[in-house]
Amino acid sequence: MSEPLRLGIVGLGRAFMLMLPTLAHHPLVRLVAAADPREEARWQFESDFSRADAPARSYDNVEELCADDGVEALYIASPHQFHVAHVRLAATYGKHVLVEKPMALTIADCQAMIEAADAAGVHLLVGHSHSYDAPYLKASELIRSGRFGRARMITASNHTDFLYRPRRPEELDTAQGGGVVFSQGAHQVDIARLLGGGLVSTVRATTGRFDPARPTEGAYQALLVFAEGASATLTYSGYGRYDSDEQLGWIGEMGQRRDPESYGMARRGLVGVSTPEEEAALKNTRTYGVAKNSVAPLSAALGHNHFGPITVCCEQADLRPLASGVMVYADDRRWLEALPAPTVPRAEVVDELYAAIRSGIAPLHSGAWGMATLEVCLAILESARTGREIALQHQVAPG
Amino acid sequence: MSEPLRLGIVGLGRAFMLMLPTLAHHPLVRLVAAADPREEARWQFESDFSRADAPARSYDNVEELCADDGVEALYIASPHQFHVAHVRLAATYGKHVLVEKPMALTIADCQAMIEAADAAGVHLLVGHSHSYDAPYLKASELIRSGRFGRARMITASNHTDFLYRPRRPEELDTAQGGGVVFSQGAHQVDIARLLGGGLVSTVRATTGRFDPARPTEGAYQALLVFAEGASATLTYSGYGRYDSDEQLGWIGEMGQRRDPESYGMARRGLVGVSTPEEEAALKNTRTYGVAKNSVAPLSAALGHNHFGPITVCCEQADLRPLASGVMVYADDRRWLEALPAPTVPRAEVVDELYAAIRSGIAPLHSGAWGMATLEVCLAILESARTGREIALQHQVAPG
Ligand SMILES: NC(=O)c1ccc[n+]([C@@H]2O[C@H](COP(=O)([O-])OP(=O)(O)OC[C@H]3O[C@@H](n4cnc5c(N)ncnc54)[C@H](O)[C@@H]3O)[C@@H](O)[C@H]2O)c1
Ligand SMILES: NC(=O)c1ccc[n+]([C@@H]2O[C@H](COP(=O)([O-])OP(=O)(O)OC[C@H]3O[C@@H](n4cnc5c(N)ncnc54)[C@H](O)[C@@H]3O)[C@@H](O)[C@H]2O)c1
Repeated sequence: MSEPLRLGIVGLGRAFMLMLPTLAHHPLVRLVAAADPREEARWQFESDFSRADAPARSYDNVEELCADDGVEALYIASPHQFHVAHVRLAATYGKHVLVEKPMALTIADCQAMIEAADAAGVHLLVGHSHSYDAPYLKASELIRSGRFGRARMITASNHTDFLYRPRRPEELDTAQGGGVVFSQGAHQVDIARLLGGGLVSTVRATTGRFDPARPTEGAYQALLVFAEGASATLTYSGYGRYDSDEQLGWIGEMGQRRDPESYGMARRGLVGVSTPEEEAALKNTRTYGVAKNSVAPLSAALGHNHFGPITVCCEQADLRPLASGVMVYADDRRWLEALPAPTVPRAEVVDELYAAIRSGIAPLHSGAWGMATLEVCLAILESARTGREIALQHQVAPG
Repeated sequence: MSEPLRLGIVGLGRAFMLMLPTLAHHPLVRLVAAADPREEARWQFESDFSRADAPARSYDNVEELCADDGVEALYIASPHQFHVAHVRLAATYGKHVLVEKPMALTIADCQAMIEAADAAGVHLLVGHSHSYDAPYLKASELIRSGRFGRARMITASNHTDFLYRPRRPEELDTAQGGGVVFSQGAHQVDIARLLGGGLVSTVRATTGRFDPARPTEGAYQALLVFAEGASATLTYSGYGRYDSDEQLGWIGEMGQRRDPESYGMARRGLVGVSTPEEEAALKNTRTYGVAKNSVAPLSAALGHNHFGPITVCCEQADLRPLASGVMVYADDRRWLEALPAPTVPRAEVVDELYAAIRSGIAPLHSGAWGMATLEVCLAILESARTGREIALQHQVAPG
């Protein structure tokens, strides 16, 4: 009944490291194989995940991993531009897929990925995205219960230092999927769509490129109008100045304790870096197989993952998803719909993948869902570029 | 040199009471006369403001007040729908004018007011609005200094109980200027325009009427795009649930200490009120000449007035106006540009009026400025109604 998924990993980089606490400790998954061109990562993977009875396998190319009979599903965490090719390959070999956000860089690529998965009869999920976080799922459940009327106005803002974390060159080039609209919009839009009912009609947005040395979008603002009249305002800035975790009791994106005194740290980390190669090398010092970062025992998290302060005005209550649950502000009283502290962080991602593969439960974060979120992100870029409101056509409701 | 302005008041209601601490204590103003149809208000005014050598005068109609030779300027705080007639009358009699927000209900009325003031050679200011608050003026000054690059993204939200404060019937009827877009948008849009450079190109917005018993807009969201590429997202809800003063250390709109435990108070105050007449009567119990509310000695305020959490992303710093000053978040450090605690609250309103009348300094909050803010508010309503982005044509930069 609860036989763990035998998961293979494509890309043993930062995303994989962020999912490591989940993938290493969730009882419903076992890491059996991986592909990465980096030898040190492969070596580390084998050493971390081999068992006496079952050595973990690693490959220097994705196709061999896909051909591995012991692998049921793949977590594709390679850079954006490879997602489409890697998903198609996985589908060809009959593997289920969890592909990192953003799903791809174009609608056509998303469609190709969905078709490949459909043709092969495999599940295709997109994530991790923060819309998997339990507090947003709980808020969505409260909304869908109808107890508080329809969700009408969503206000989301997030101020981080995203743009000053060490990057590969293509992460700073919008044409190759760089910038915050692709990487961070994928989270914020996903959450707004989840809470607003999924079906975005139009997008009007602006984007900001405030630092010539990092010539991609570091910030955006958007108004999404939903099919049934709800709307969402989104603000994102990755420029590493005001930090909106301040509004959330200094609990960070991963549910961890933040240090309010570490102001400006990301920028300082780049001091002395003067070429793209040096920056990629710096990123590399923090990656799997290089940094001292093998699987650690789980430490108790302060709270759930989150993606910045979000308020939802429903017709009869306001909801605020927090790291500890969902605050409900009704007419006469307010209360916390508490969520138990997470034991395994981001467990929701494995739960959804497992339910799809083992029980055939249609995932929320399907290919169609991920494509709809990418459509909004592309519309943010297009609206900013053209100065127009953009109408959408690939939107889907939460399954 | 510093001869106080001899001010007459039109309308001794709630707005007047909110300005009372300012008008009674600011050294550059003296209240000499007033007009209000309510006898108890006139009586109270004479009793509060008569001096041994100079009785305060009161009238039951505005024209007689306008004809009063001892009056230099009028503060017009009658209900919205009277603003145009009262301003024209004041101008006819050569009085300078400070008219409450919203300036009027239509662009044509604003134009008529501006023309009347111009023809008479009198100053016309619109306010109080919260864009007079020192922290916003300071933020605007910091932006205009150029130290932090251009202001690019403004995020403003405000969650209050506005809709559940006792109201006159027309305050709940949009056609007569009711609802939060006219009354509260006038503040929030004014601030966003001040910080964003004044010139709004387009508005896309949604509005919410969540309570059939109060059938006017109680909430809105808007994206303003400015001529030079800045943008602002605005969220306002007056539905008395989540209260955004929580984000500001429970300092309220007037700079006062809020009680976080008084949840739901506004709504509870309306329990038992079942007709519009009863509600107007309830509002009336709290008004000037009825409530125990004569001029009180000034108590030390916790901080400056504010209108909810606001963040401005400039190209080289983020700014957060707070009740104590402006927090500046630069690349390597953050600091408070502290403002001395206010001695007279909202002193900025009298300062600007005085500077215009006595020194001929063009006011920021001119008729043209107020009309531009009203144009945005009207565009919010129109965008919500038509589902389109609205282009504007009466915008002006801060003078
Ligand atoms: N959900 C999240 O919180 C989150 C966080 C970070 C990144 N991501 C996503 O994960 C993806 C990867 O980003 P990252 O920051 O981990 O990048 P990264 O550079 O840290 O890691 C990428 C890894 O993929 C490997 N790789 C490169 N080409 C490959 C190929 N052809 N086949 C197999 N492996 C290959 C690299 O050697 C590296 O180990 C992106 O799509 C990104 O948006 C998601
Ligand atoms: N800036 C602020 O913070 C603020 C706050 C509240 C109200 N206001 C504005 O002030 C104006 C008045 O609102 P309010 O809440 O004080 O209303 P109110 O009903 O409390 O007061 C209106 C007053 O005007 C008097 N009045 C009515 N008709 C009059 C007339 N023809 N001539 C002279 N007086 C007349 C009424 O008797 C009453 O005393 C509105 O435009 C409102 O938007 C501004």
